Amino acid sequence: MEAKINRQWRLAARPMGLIKESDFKWHEEPVPIPGDDEILVRNIYLSLDPANRGWVREAKSYITPVAIGEVMRGITIGVVEQSHHGAFQAGDIVQGILGWQEYALTDGTGLTQLPRDPSLPLAAYLGLFGIIGPTAYFGLLDIGKPKAGETLVVSAAAGAVGSLVGQIGKIKGCRVVGIAGTDEKCHWITEELGFDAAINYKTEPVHERLRTHCPNGIDVYFDNVGGEILDAVLSLINVRARIAICGLISQYNAVEPVPGPYNFRSILTQRARVEGFIILDHMGRFQEAYEDLGNWMAEGKIQYRVDIIDGLENAPRGINKLFEGTNKGKLIVKVSEEQSF
Amino acid sequence: MEAKINRQWRLAARPMGLIKESDFKWHEEPVPIPGDDEILVRNIYLSLDPANRGWVREAKSYITPVAIGEVMRGITIGVVEQSHHGAFQAGDIVQGILGWQEYALTDGTGLTQLPRDPSLPLAAYLGLFGIIGPTAYFGLLDIGKPKAGETLVVSAAAGAVGSLVGQIGKIKGCRVVGIAGTDEKCHWITEELGFDAAINYKTEPVHERLRTHCPNGIDVYFDNVGGEILDAVLSLINVRARIAICGLISQYNAVEPVPGPYNFRSILTQRARVEGFIILDHMGRFQEAYEDLGNWMAEGKIQYRVDIIDGLENAPRGINKLFEGTNKGKLIVKVSEEQSF
Repeated sequence: MEAKINRQWRLAARPMGLIKESDFKWHEEPVPIPGDDEILVRNIYLSLDPANRGWVREAKSYITPVAIGEVMRGITIGVVEQSHHGAFQAGDIVQGILGWQEYALTDGTGLTQLPRDPSLPLAAYLGLFGIIGPTAYFGLLDIGKPKAGETLVVSAAAGAVGSLVGQIGKIKGCRVVGIAGTDEKCHWITEELGFDAAINYKTEPVHERLRTHCPNGIDVYFDNVGGEILDAVLSLINVRARIAICGLISQYNAVEPVPGPYNFRSILTQRARVEGFIILDHMGRFQEAYEDLGNWMAEGKIQYRVDIIDGLENAPRGINKLFEGTNKGKLIVKVSEEQSF
Repeated sequence: MEAKINRQWRLAARPMGLIKESDFKWHEEPVPIPGDDEILVRNIYLSLDPANRGWVREAKSYITPVAIGEVMRGITIGVVEQSHHGAFQAGDIVQGILGWQEYALTDGTGLTQLPRDPSLPLAAYLGLFGIIGPTAYFGLLDIGKPKAGETLVVSAAAGAVGSLVGQIGKIKGCRVVGIAGTDEKCHWITEELGFDAAINYKTEPVHERLRTHCPNGIDVYFDNVGGEILDAVLSLINVRARIAICGLISQYNAVEPVPGPYNFRSILTQRARVEGFIILDHMGRFQEAYEDLGNWMAEGKIQYRVDIIDGLENAPRGINKLFEGTNKGKLIVKVSEEQSF
């Protein structure tokens, strides 16, 4: 029998600025054979996330940078093809950090079995559950601590996380203002998702519009972007405001040092709390988020959308949609077919 | 009987950069006569604090700016000369926000009666108790939450607040590294106050020295200064570090917008918490701090020093010692004589 071929993207160079296809190298090798206590997973969907950009930087961070020559790191959903591991069997649908490749060998560390709810497309596990849901859920509720009647602002508001944050904010009784980069996105979050207002930061003066849409100031800010939008928000925060720093996408591609917010002083004068949030710290508590999210979805209170790129070969080009803001919903690469489920 | 004269400094102009004497106007007028429920206080000591610089800025802040023509705002200790108020009587020693003037009329709002412990010089109430002690105490313990064995860094470490923060950090079992601006100050905090290490930021490379003196990284930072020192600290913080922003003295005299820290991103990657702290929020809890501070002083565990400027007329020139770093200890103006106590 001829050996099956595994297709991979390996990191070839540390990107400067936006990711270029030449920062990765397409690599083909035989599909590995699982040994004792090992599992072979065929990846079906690959999640593309802004954080991936940070993973290829040579800088102190919360996770070791991907080494040059290594398979690019990425979160995937796949199907167990072979298992020599007691906790998994062939046909199981799993989620893990299995990389930009078609087949992955793993000892099961960090691998989660997904329930097979036939009413839910598999991509929903990356779009709504996976790490997206818990990021929105814990980032907003643990750090933002929104109270009914307060004003919540969220940036990248039509993104996978941001759109959920705003919807959870509405469930909690907040006034919710979203900031996004196209009129289509602004329309979606206000007309479909129930945000109270939206600001197109590419065509509208953000500070002025925030002042209009947040007549009582800003109590909670869920930040995915940093930069000028964070600065505009800081100038309008209320006393004891809470700011969850969940991402700083505006500076991920920076090649020069980026100054922090000019209105940093507001943190002092308003006695605000700014806290960084990395979802990987909260892996043990995901079930708590999944339960509420599942109920809210069943009750029709939350929606999500996915933007699926077809084919692993398109991942390096596709990921820039996140930084250009051209994705509509959670960005996912379809790596192989779902087949018989 | 000839009317007694009240001497005052009134705000004449909003300072640009360092305070100039011409930003204030010396004013003399008859000492006011207390009406019903009013008290006349003769100020004995006036506290000069970095925060005063913020009070004369025309900017959204935690307190209304002092208006042009108004008596300059300042915290004082004084003696009640006349009282038509049930809660105070002549001879009481009080502390309040009674301004840069010799005599102040007040309805008692925000006025605290000080105990008259004959073993304690009156200036100690501004140098150790007053707002200084509670600022160090609550800022460090509530926001910094230091645990034994952790590393605490404090800037303006020989200042009134900073020197207490470091000493409380030692009491709590931390490794304490202080940053100050002269060798004399560095010597004082290490040799007299028991700090583990000191860095002279004017002559030493702060980032490199912090790396040396904090071999296990930084868990808690008590910031009085902001700017480049905050940036150096951010590059060395541990996961879940706590940063209390108690002052940003490096930018109080800035005339151009000041960028926030270039290492702002560390807040995200290290999941740090940054929180602003204004002592006026904690007025109701001062007794809690005074009790511990009093005990620690009695046990010889904390020291303080005061730098007394003689004469109200020297206040506008004297306050710049805070920004030039030439004061040695809590900066206080002696406005009038203590007399018979």
